[in-house]
Amino acid sequence: MDDPIATSDRSGTANEGLTVWFTGLSGAGKTTLCNAVYSALLDQGRRVEILDGDALRRHLSRDLSFSKEDRDENIRRIGFIADMLTRNGILVLVAAISPYRAARDEVRQKIGRFLEVFVDAPLSVCEERDPKGLYRKARRGELRGFTGIDDPYEEPLLPDVRCHTDQETLEVSSRKVVSAVADYLNFSRPGP
Amino acid sequence: MDDPIATSDRSGTANEGLTVWFTGLSGAGKTTLCNAVYSALLDQGRRVEILDGDALRRHLSRDLSFSKEDRDENIRRIGFIADMLTRNGILVLVAAISPYRAARDEVRQKIGRFLEVFVDAPLSVCEERDPKGLYRKARRGELRGFTGIDDPYEEPLLPDVRCHTDQETLEVSSRKVVSAVADYLNFSRPGP
Repeated sequence: MDDPIATSDRSGTANEGLTVWFTGLSGAGKTTLCNAVYSALLDQGRRVEILDGDALRRHLSRDLSFSKEDRDENIRRIGFIADMLTRNGILVLVAAISPYRAARDEVRQKIGRFLEVFVDAPLSVCEERDPKGLYRKARRGELRGFTGIDDPYEEPLLPDVRCHTDQETLEVSSRKVVSAVADYLNFSRPGP
Repeated sequence: MDDPIATSDRSGTANEGLTVWFTGLSGAGKTTLCNAVYSALLDQGRRVEILDGDALRRHLSRDLSFSKEDRDENIRRIGFIADMLTRNGILVLVAAISPYRAARDEVRQKIGRFLEVFVDAPLSVCEERDPKGLYRKARRGELRGFTGIDDPYEEPLLPDVRCHTDQETLEVSSRKVVSAVADYLNFSRPGP
């Protein structure tokens, strides 16, 4: 076996696995929404795991900067783990800015069983919320390469779910995602 | 939730998850044994995943060298993923030289549900096998910090299973591990 990691097949559980990828600006509400969806899915008795970009940077990617190259590598690593969990029948919720479309499309293609959730709030709203004070720092020039300020965010062209977190309640956003997950799991065939 | 990754609980499936950690010199037969155990466990209908140190270096740790610090970080990353899979009810087989006792003990403690398999073959045998030609390179000084040559390997003091791959057949080694796994899963209570 050349690369045993890529070859395994779990036909028995494959059709329960799915990666739900939350992308959006810092402060758009990815983690909050992710946690709400997590609770709802747990209540349904599903096996769910959260991969939070911030936490993963501490655990797996301490070496990576916020350059485009390193951001892409970070997304690749998250995608690698999400793929492994997904093919083992686990529902994976990923919360990561993941600003580049190509990197998101790459993990979508790799994982196959994938829903993209665009956590959509205007930059001005995110900047006003500024829960971690990062926008202020970025505006003052203390943070370089901050998404939305001096680094691009490429919006999803055709997300599976779009949540306008500045216009709808957390409950509404969460229900949209949970219902998309249910649809996917009910109507999909065992994945690639 | 501060660090959602660490807080989840899977009481329903926790007692199926287990990390089996194969440690030993390069050329001792970790990957070969790992693959044999993998097949046997798959045949039993278990959900199994292999985390191969070499493959993971390509996927997750391209940035890491073979210094002690980077080796420890590599083991920590593998342990992080193994932990996540284990608490989701998956049998994880890790094949990694993992030369430092403290790093292995750290992941064992973190994961909880853990068996250490010492893939034990004398250095002279491993060096004679030299399946990847690495020992020759190390002896010629073309590779620095090679475990067993100019870098230490700290043997497990009390491994759960010890396989003398120079004295016993692959089948015997594999059966020892599979039987230890069965014992663990039959007699263990849902993990920490």
